[in-house]
Amino acid sequence: MGVPVAIVGASGYTGAELIRLLLLHPRVELAALYARRAAGSRISAVFPQLEGRLDLQVEAFDPDRVAAAARVAFCALPHGQSARAVAALRGRGLMVIDLSADYRLRSVDTYNAWYGSESEPAHPHPELIAEAVYGLPELYRESLVDAQLIASPGCYPTATLLAIAPLLAAGLVSPDGLVVDAKSGATGAGRSASQATHFPEMGEGIRAYKIGGMHRHTAEMEQELELVAKAKVRLTFTPHLLPMARGILSCVYARPASGASVSAAACQRALEEAYAGEPFVTVLSAERLPDTSHVRGSNRAHVAVRYDERAERVVALCAIDNLVKGASGQAIQAMNLAQGWAETTGLAMTGMFP
Amino acid sequence: MGVPVAIVGASGYTGAELIRLLLLHPRVELAALYARRAAGSRISAVFPQLEGRLDLQVEAFDPDRVAAAARVAFCALPHGQSARAVAALRGRGLMVIDLSADYRLRSVDTYNAWYGSESEPAHPHPELIAEAVYGLPELYRESLVDAQLIASPGCYPTATLLAIAPLLAAGLVSPDGLVVDAKSGATGAGRSASQATHFPEMGEGIRAYKIGGMHRHTAEMEQELELVAKAKVRLTFTPHLLPMARGILSCVYARPASGASVSAAACQRALEEAYAGEPFVTVLSAERLPDTSHVRGSNRAHVAVRYDERAERVVALCAIDNLVKGASGQAIQAMNLAQGWAETTGLAMTGMFP
Amino acid sequence: MGVPVAIVGASGYTGAELIRLLLLHPRVELAALYARRAAGSRISAVFPQLEGRLDLQVEAFDPDRVAAAARVAFCALPHGQSARAVAALRGRGLMVIDLSADYRLRSVDTYNAWYGSESEPAHPHPELIAEAVYGLPELYRESLVDAQLIASPGCYPTATLLAIAPLLAAGLVSPDGLVVDAKSGATGAGRSASQATHFPEMGEGIRAYKIGGMHRHTAEMEQELELVAKAKVRLTFTPHLLPMARGILSCVYARPASGASVSAAACQRALEEAYAGEPFVTVLSAERLPDTSHVRGSNRAHVAVRYDERAERVVALCAIDNLVKGASGQAIQAMNLAQGWAETTGLAMTGMFP
Amino acid sequence: MGVPVAIVGASGYTGAELIRLLLLHPRVELAALYARRAAGSRISAVFPQLEGRLDLQVEAFDPDRVAAAARVAFCALPHGQSARAVAALRGRGLMVIDLSADYRLRSVDTYNAWYGSESEPAHPHPELIAEAVYGLPELYRESLVDAQLIASPGCYPTATLLAIAPLLAAGLVSPDGLVVDAKSGATGAGRSASQATHFPEMGEGIRAYKIGGMHRHTAEMEQELELVAKAKVRLTFTPHLLPMARGILSCVYARPASGASVSAAACQRALEEAYAGEPFVTVLSAERLPDTSHVRGSNRAHVAVRYDERAERVVALCAIDNLVKGASGQAIQAMNLAQGWAETTGLAMTGMFP
Repeated sequence: MGVPVAIVGASGYTGAELIRLLLLHPRVELAALYARRAAGSRISAVFPQLEGRLDLQVEAFDPDRVAAAARVAFCALPHGQSARAVAALRGRGLMVIDLSADYRLRSVDTYNAWYGSESEPAHPHPELIAEAVYGLPELYRESLVDAQLIASPGCYPTATLLAIAPLLAAGLVSPDGLVVDAKSGATGAGRSASQATHFPEMGEGIRAYKIGGMHRHTAEMEQELELVAKAKVRLTFTPHLLPMARGILSCVYARPASGASVSAAACQRALEEAYAGEPFVTVLSAERLPDTSHVRGSNRAHVAVRYDERAERVVALCAIDNLVKGASGQAIQAMNLAQGWAETTGLAMTGMFP
Repeated sequence: MGVPVAIVGASGYTGAELIRLLLLHPRVELAALYARRAAGSRISAVFPQLEGRLDLQVEAFDPDRVAAAARVAFCALPHGQSARAVAALRGRGLMVIDLSADYRLRSVDTYNAWYGSESEPAHPHPELIAEAVYGLPELYRESLVDAQLIASPGCYPTATLLAIAPLLAAGLVSPDGLVVDAKSGATGAGRSASQATHFPEMGEGIRAYKIGGMHRHTAEMEQELELVAKAKVRLTFTPHLLPMARGILSCVYARPASGASVSAAACQRALEEAYAGEPFVTVLSAERLPDTSHVRGSNRAHVAVRYDERAERVVALCAIDNLVKGASGQAIQAMNLAQGWAETTGLAMTGMFP
Repeated sequence: MGVPVAIVGASGYTGAELIRLLLLHPRVELAALYARRAAGSRISAVFPQLEGRLDLQVEAFDPDRVAAAARVAFCALPHGQSARAVAALRGRGLMVIDLSADYRLRSVDTYNAWYGSESEPAHPHPELIAEAVYGLPELYRESLVDAQLIASPGCYPTATLLAIAPLLAAGLVSPDGLVVDAKSGATGAGRSASQATHFPEMGEGIRAYKIGGMHRHTAEMEQELELVAKAKVRLTFTPHLLPMARGILSCVYARPASGASVSAAACQRALEEAYAGEPFVTVLSAERLPDTSHVRGSNRAHVAVRYDERAERVVALCAIDNLVKGASGQAIQAMNLAQGWAETTGLAMTGMFP
Repeated sequence: MGVPVAIVGASGYTGAELIRLLLLHPRVELAALYARRAAGSRISAVFPQLEGRLDLQVEAFDPDRVAAAARVAFCALPHGQSARAVAALRGRGLMVIDLSADYRLRSVDTYNAWYGSESEPAHPHPELIAEAVYGLPELYRESLVDAQLIASPGCYPTATLLAIAPLLAAGLVSPDGLVVDAKSGATGAGRSASQATHFPEMGEGIRAYKIGGMHRHTAEMEQELELVAKAKVRLTFTPHLLPMARGILSCVYARPASGASVSAAACQRALEEAYAGEPFVTVLSAERLPDTSHVRGSNRAHVAVRYDERAERVVALCAIDNLVKGASGQAIQAMNLAQGWAETTGLAMTGMFP
């Protein structure tokens, strides 16, 4: 029997994706599913793709019941709610992978500034921040071993960090003046129906949203890039929603670092060295550019870089599936590391193309 | 080490799907890939989703080399070509699963009538027809055990037979006057680019094609339904192409059999009894109708039936992924049976939704 | 100055489409817009495509205000509500084109059977049924002249009647055992967001709904076909929703009439004769089949027919834009006839392809 | 009778769009269509949406025949070819609107550097460059009056210039270090089918192409921005292809000009002042962001600007339909000005949404 795992917040898209992936994971057993509104329903009534394949009943969240059922819990709840569930589960000794934003930011002040609201101005459980490990294995592989609380990265930060972090780390680009222009599929907006995501209104169009320093993932990207660059980072971030279900393509624009000898080859080499041996990151050769349709359904990231000599600008790109490497797959990858299993366990699927 | 398998015709969509699925199959080893035009390229140059995951080089087909490399071969070639490759491989002792139409029809005359062309009026290797087993496990499970040549069914016939065969077998509907209206994603038209499949022209529209007794799958459906019904079947078949990549929804219209006591409940019961214990067929309850997006990427079929009392018409529906249960997944399911492995080996993935 | 027209129910898709088309109509002036929830907003806040083009404020419906503002009113309200608005406006002397189902059925009993609900079991204003003219110009052109109340046909009936009515009228096909399999874009489900129309769940999939004698358009199709065939008609109707915004493709299956000499040529001729001179119906030649993307945005219908000799079945198809020829464009076409204007006034746009 | 116009290069998407729009233009008559491969076919065989609406036969290009048939010609040919056709037609006295790149660049050296090829290293007719007027009415309205040769702008430059030119002109942003990240629908890649535009491969994915100073529109954008800024401009430009047919969204990143007092309000005001009275440019208010689906099918541009104070970056956006304001509609707008007609003649259509 595998390690029993629970999913708290099983009725959203990251929940569904955790189920899809964990059903194929040889070391775990999907023991229990929790979701508020769907409580009492069979999961196959919530996600018809599970008809005939998984017959669990969704329950209302109760930390004692989770603790009785599982040793590892994935929390895929909205921020704030998630912090409370995490605290309750950590208090009962479960290893927790949190897919919300609650434990991604290391500074509680930064968290409160970006995520605080009138009804909940401050982080409800800041005492656990110190324990949390940021679950991007490409940057924090060692720290993830034996981690008990993993803060799984946001989708946009994952794609953005994988594109630009090695170039910053190599001193090739300046931490000053970064521009991040990212494009996401509609699942990035969650499962709740709205006018903006109504098929006839979202199809056949593209639009930016929350631009000009409004999107909360800005803080997460800046935090991690500052750690890499050992310098202050203030970037501008523009997310877009496109007519496709899955995928993020992040395009990062950076100036060459002053004094650095920047070239296309140097940038390419920096990526290749950073990702040599990485099981899920592919550095594309100079003839190829990333395409989200090539990573759909897989935990893989495709990265590439170009140097625009005329304009003296480095352009780094990364394509991921926002629900897999950008959420549920990466959470499982981090769990594998924390549990001491092979990092790729249960994540061997290639992209589903076409 | 697993059983070494080869894919002949690896550069098309059914080839890519075989690769995707076989890479996750615990009993086989993907030993060699063959394709004419792509010969000499790395497979990841043909299918970028394989970058970093599979590094095989595509070879030109040579039956001796296949025989040296593999014990099982999947043929995903155009009809005619496939028959020749199958004959060469069977002659060298390989177990072959043929995804073309070449061994689906039991009558060589019917084959020649539907598939013969001016340049090739007759089946090139009719001597193997008798050996072939039609690879629809739901109808031919026993015959598939130890089969050495499996004719994997067409995509439209799979969806259509799964919808209507049990109702015919139960004597509920008449074999006379069947209407099959089926809708397919664009991958059904293959990987070759054309004006009709150019994104701006195929998107945002639906159209029928090869209607009025023109589509070759008509013969295959009639053959199998005649065997089930023990009566002559002449059906009309209308295929459509839609703006989605994958999926087939077949909608079959039938009159109640004369003298039969037909009701919604009787039809539902006939499907449930036929598919009790089937690992890949789910009979939806009365509140649900099949949706191709719920089976995308999986080997599962969702079937449902309604009885229109006013018009005295049975309407049976089946949704599959045309590339999985309609092609590559079903071919693997049949291989599993032929090899004596658990039928679901390597095919446990759920639909990827959304 | 043109004739002042009002749109009652301006915030839905048929309302938006009426605005789009009427802004280009040289004989009318868009005088006033009504919608309950949007009342008080500028119409460009409801439909951003109108920014900078139309600056009307949406008002709450008040029949006296409509009568003061306009001489012609389009009602695009839900059934039941529409009947009340129509009665109020007819009572004030306006010419009314009703896009709801309220005045399409000639029998109040049939209406009550299909549209009655617990809260409203009977038609609220049956006294106007006799006055209403069914607004399908291809069948009722003469009756539409000087009509004061026009019942604009449903989208599915429009496509279905245009495909099959001439063949029934010519005595080529039997009125018995008709099968109608129709496919609609997502706008057919209206503007209200729901789980089923959420982009990630509707995209990349097709599904049937309300099948087996459940969809209310069944009654409307049967009524009109009975008048054409002079015989009882009980058809089975299966509507589908596809991942595209606009378009309906209706595929009608019919048996040859007993005793009739049916052939592909005879069927083709019947369509061509029926539609000779029709400004908006194109009978495709034998090499072509209808494609909804070719009529998108236009008031045109593309029809075609095939005879499946093997199965002895006539297959007739029609593609329209459900929001134009299936709703707002056809309503304007009928208005033109009623007003004595050239039928094509304001409707000269071709399909927008791609 | 209207002015007779001809379209040279009628079988591509900009040709089709010219036909769609010119059929609704009250001052012109569509007199003749030219296309090499389609010569001899009826235009409705090339574009089925024209069935029953336009019955012209496509001819092989012959400047004498064009001169006999028309007084105004639109050239929608590939660059190089177009220059030769333009020269032949100007030599015969026709007024020409060229939709190719051949007369957009004012410097023949720049043209040769970006467009020269081995087989054709230099512009074939540089003598006409001086005569050409860049057909962006928002910048060159006066110059377009009585123009005899109009170089209709590229699709990406149109969207980009409309977004950023007024901010540069107002001295709010620096001409140094501009980043242009633009997203285009698939029609931007033209009508020729290819693997990359095959529906199953282009759908459900986004990818950049020709990045890092490779795309030829870079030169055109730099030229026009230098004229506005009166300073050298070297920008980096990243185009993307998305799964939608039409639309471009350009997102331009700029630093505040040194010494300028930049604020969101100042940027908004600069756009509003620049576009006050413009018939086709709408500056969205602070609550709205451009969405290509709101301008689809119309000649309208939606622009917006944000100031990211944290990162000190101005973000300007513009959405257009690449085939209308980005090509054929803008060409007609320029023709209207050149002919002395009302600028909006024939271009009154709103966006087709949904």
